[in-house]
Order: sequence, then C-alpha cells, then structure tokens
Amino acid sequence: MKIIHSMGSVRQTVLGWRRAERRVGLVPTMGALHEGHASLIRRARRENDEVVVSIFVNPVQFGPGEDFSRYPRPFVRDAALCRREGVSVLFAPKPSALYSTDHQTWVTVEKLAGPLCGPFRPGHFRGVATVVLKLFNMVQPDRAYFGKKDFQQLRVIEQMVNDLNVPVKIVPCPTVRDPSGLALSSRNAYLSPDERAAAPRLRRALRTAGQVLKSRRNVREAQRAARNELRQVPGARIQYLEILDPKTLSVPKKTGPFLLAAAVYVGRTRLIDNLLVRGAL
Amino acid sequence: MKIIHSMGSVRQTVLGWRRAERRVGLVPTMGALHEGHASLIRRARRENDEVVVSIFVNPVQFGPGEDFSRYPRPFVRDAALCRREGVSVLFAPKPSALYSTDHQTWVTVEKLAGPLCGPFRPGHFRGVATVVLKLFNMVQPDRAYFGKKDFQQLRVIEQMVNDLNVPVKIVPCPTVRDPSGLALSSRNAYLSPDERAAAPRLRRALRTAGQVLKSRRNVREAQRAARNELRQVPGARIQYLEILDPKTLSVPKKTGPFLLAAAVYVGRTRLIDNLLVRGAL
Repeated sequence: MKIIHSMGSVRQTVLGWRRAERRVGLVPTMGALHEGHASLIRRARRENDEVVVSIFVNPVQFGPGEDFSRYPRPFVRDAALCRREGVSVLFAPKPSALYSTDHQTWVTVEKLAGPLCGPFRPGHFRGVATVVLKLFNMVQPDRAYFGKKDFQQLRVIEQMVNDLNVPVKIVPCPTVRDPSGLALSSRNAYLSPDERAAAPRLRRALRTAGQVLKSRRNVREAQRAARNELRQVPGARIQYLEILDPKTLSVPKKTGPFLLAAAVYVGRTRLIDNLLVRGAL
Repeated sequence: MKIIHSMGSVRQTVLGWRRAERRVGLVPTMGALHEGHASLIRRARRENDEVVVSIFVNPVQFGPGEDFSRYPRPFVRDAALCRREGVSVLFAPKPSALYSTDHQTWVTVEKLAGPLCGPFRPGHFRGVATVVLKLFNMVQPDRAYFGKKDFQQLRVIEQMVNDLNVPVKIVPCPTVRDPSGLALSSRNAYLSPDERAAAPRLRRALRTAGQVLKSRRNVREAQRAARNELRQVPGARIQYLEILDPKTLSVPKKTGPFLLAAAVYVGRTRLIDNLLVRGAL
C-alpha cells in the first residue's frame, strides 16, 4: 500500500492504472476508521481492481461550535486497517493543499440540503459536496462508496453527481451496527460508558416508529411514538426526528417509501441514524 | 465531423480517443459562431488531436429580462463553420438533457462573480460555472478554450477549475476584433447600422483610459477620461467602466497590472469589452 499526500502523485498513480484498464474505487473518509469503513473498502475491492481510501478531516464541513479540532485522527491505526483490507493507495492530503487562501468556489445542492441536518449544520452539506467533488476530480475513480448511515449526505452526493454529470458511479452501502444495534460512527468514541449504554435506544426508537407506521399507517403517530421513547432515555436530547420521502427528503407519499431519520444528542455527542421503510404499506 | 446530441454518445467517442492516447480540446460556445470562435477552434486544433465544439444556449445564465429567447441560433451555419475548421465533434445537447426538472446543484465562485457584470446579471456566473463544469464532466477534455473578451467569465472559470481541482487546462485566447476595433460578439448582430457605427467607440474609450493611466498613473483620471468619451457617443449608456486588478477583480495595486473593463448599452444591445495594461507603469 502506498501512502500519498499530494494530488499530483495520486493522479499519476491512477493514470497508470487507467492506462492498464484497471477499474478504480474510491472510499472517501475522515479517518478514525471502523468496521463500517472496512465494509465499504471490502465492497470497493470486490467491484474494482484498485482501491483508494482518502482520509481528510474537511474543515469546511464543520460549523464554528462543532468538533473539528477534537475529531479523532488515529492515522497510524487507520493506515494499518487500510493495509489489512488490501487498499492500494491511502490518500491523505494536507488541508493547505486542498484549500488555497483564496478558495471561493462552492458546490451547493439546494433542496436536499434543506431539511434534517440542514438547519442545524448551516454550510455542512456545501462543505461536503465541495470536498467530495474535489476528491473525485483529484482521484477520478470509476466508483465511490458511501454509507447509508449518513443518508442525507448520500442523497446530496447522488444529486450532485447527477446534476453535474460527474463521471463517477455512487455506490450506497448498508449501515454497519454493533451487536446492540448502535450504528458505527467515529463519534461513538466520544461516549462515556453510561452514554454508550443509552445510545442504542436511538435505533430502537426508530424501529418502534417503523412498526407504528406499518400497523397504523400514520406518520404523526409513528413520529410521536419514537419521540416518546427517546424522551425516556436519560441524557438524551432530540434534535430532530422526521419521516420523509427518501428521494426528495420532503413530505412522503401516503404509500411511502419512508425515511425515518433522527439526530439525537447523547450527552455532548450528536448521533444520527435512520431507517428505511419500503413503500405500499 | 460528427454531430452529437447525447451525453452518452459524446462520452463514448472521447473514451475511444482516450484509449488511443489522443488529446482532446473543447471549445464551449453558445453558437452564433464568428471569427472569434474560429480562432479558438484553430488554437484547439493546433494543440490537440481532436476538437469538440459544444453549442448550448444555456438558459440558467440569462436573467429574466435578458435575451435568451432571441439569442441567435443559426445551427446550420455554425455546423458548416465547424466542419470547415476541422472540428471532430459538434456536441449540441438539448436543454432538457442538461437540466432535469429537479436540478438543484449550483457552482458558485464567490468573490470573482461580485464586481463588473456581477451586480447587473445576478445568477449569471453561477449559471456559467455550473454549465461549464457540466460540459467538462460530459466531454472530459484535456484543454478548454475561452476568449479574453469575456474576461470575468474567464477568471471565474479559471478559479473554479483551480478550487475544484478540475483536471482540465484552461487556455485563454486573445479577443478577435473587426477592422474598426469592435470586439467580435454574437450580440453584434443585434446592432442597427447607426449603432454598429457607434460601437467601436467602446474600444477607443478603453484605449484612451489606458493611455491616461500610463501617462498620469492615476486610476480615477483614466476612468473619468473614458467615461467622458463614452458620454459623447449617441445612443450609448455606460453600465460600468472599472479599472481593477485582473487577477482578483478588486482594487488594483498601484503598480498594476490593470484590467480596464466596461459594459455599455448601445441602443438595446449590451456590449462588453476590456483592455489589459501591464504592471509597473
């Protein structure tokens, strides 16, 4: 496995692969890799000849009060995981190489960035769309892999790729969970033992909502049931809990499909999760 | 010369060239081709193995009161010019293929879109940056050719390519003028004979400003001289006449270089032109 820090060098490497007609998969990450990332890498390996993992904690997708500076950066451990998983290139650009002092170009996906995390993380999806497009342009992969855990992010990227005719196939991958049902996230590392014990109840509340939705066919009742369940979790605070159309992220059709998505603070740590309920209830 | 309307087909053609290691130049246009476009095509032919000319009157870069519907579309004549100039592919996508009904992704170049045409054409450079990036993604050229007549557009595109790491080399090309000094533009076709006679005075006023700038080394005096000259042109109305730093499009350094740029209505027709004055006067 090669560790590459410069754009010129990653381009050169990919150009060599391309000349040999080798297919290239990209797994863009912010590091602090866990089994969720490992599953993306394995899928990318199955579907491509070469796999690039990028690690970049993207400053422009963090808000002023957010956890940019304390975001975990265990580079040596991340590199070991990538090596173990058969990654060809670990691409770790420096922030100064990605954003010049006069950087002023932004990619915005307007409607899809509006709901859910949108109001609580202004500028977040603009930062995500911009850095993902930059990484696509630097690496020029055939396919790129994203987890469904960050569902709104996935939809924003799919829409961007479609609207801008970006020649990259986006591959959505299932959320990986620990045995308690908690969705794996680099931010789970922030949780105290008590918070860690409470965290799986986010997933359970979403499943309750899913069951109510199926049995009662009523979005408001389903939402209420999940909110009630979450209110009983000590130290938890709901930021949002919404039931939306998974394609448009707006009001769902009566017959579905439905995206049940929530952001919950457990202590100081913000967790998100979601559940898809198929259509035609 | 092949005439292609679909993205899939243009991608297939370019992919074949790429496999044969042939270099590809793109000349993005809105059609109504004139000798200025022909000069871009010739430059592209000299520097590449294959040349694609795109013709697309991009609705999203026109404002509500602007000339989108009456913009000239002489496709047969344009195709003949391209054939004569040895173009490999004329790519003419349909608006419905470029913008889906739920298109919502925009590329904005913030600072550079602010001055000059910015306040008078809100959304214009967002529309330009977005469509140019789409064309780059569809055609994936090695190089793309733009005239310096639309200087702010050129700077916006250069900045976008740099900020988003777009793997395309931007080649700026000199403005082509008719013997009177009038910069060639598809919009010159709108001019009545009297307006056509008055139009070259835009260029002359910019040159006067350039001379005053060199002799007096004073931006305000230079500006005033050009404005005074333009005020004497019957039927002309100055929209802006600015002297800026050509890189940042903000206040120029005392030693230059200087961009002298103007937009003037001659009758109902809006003409732009500019002049570069090198630094260290």
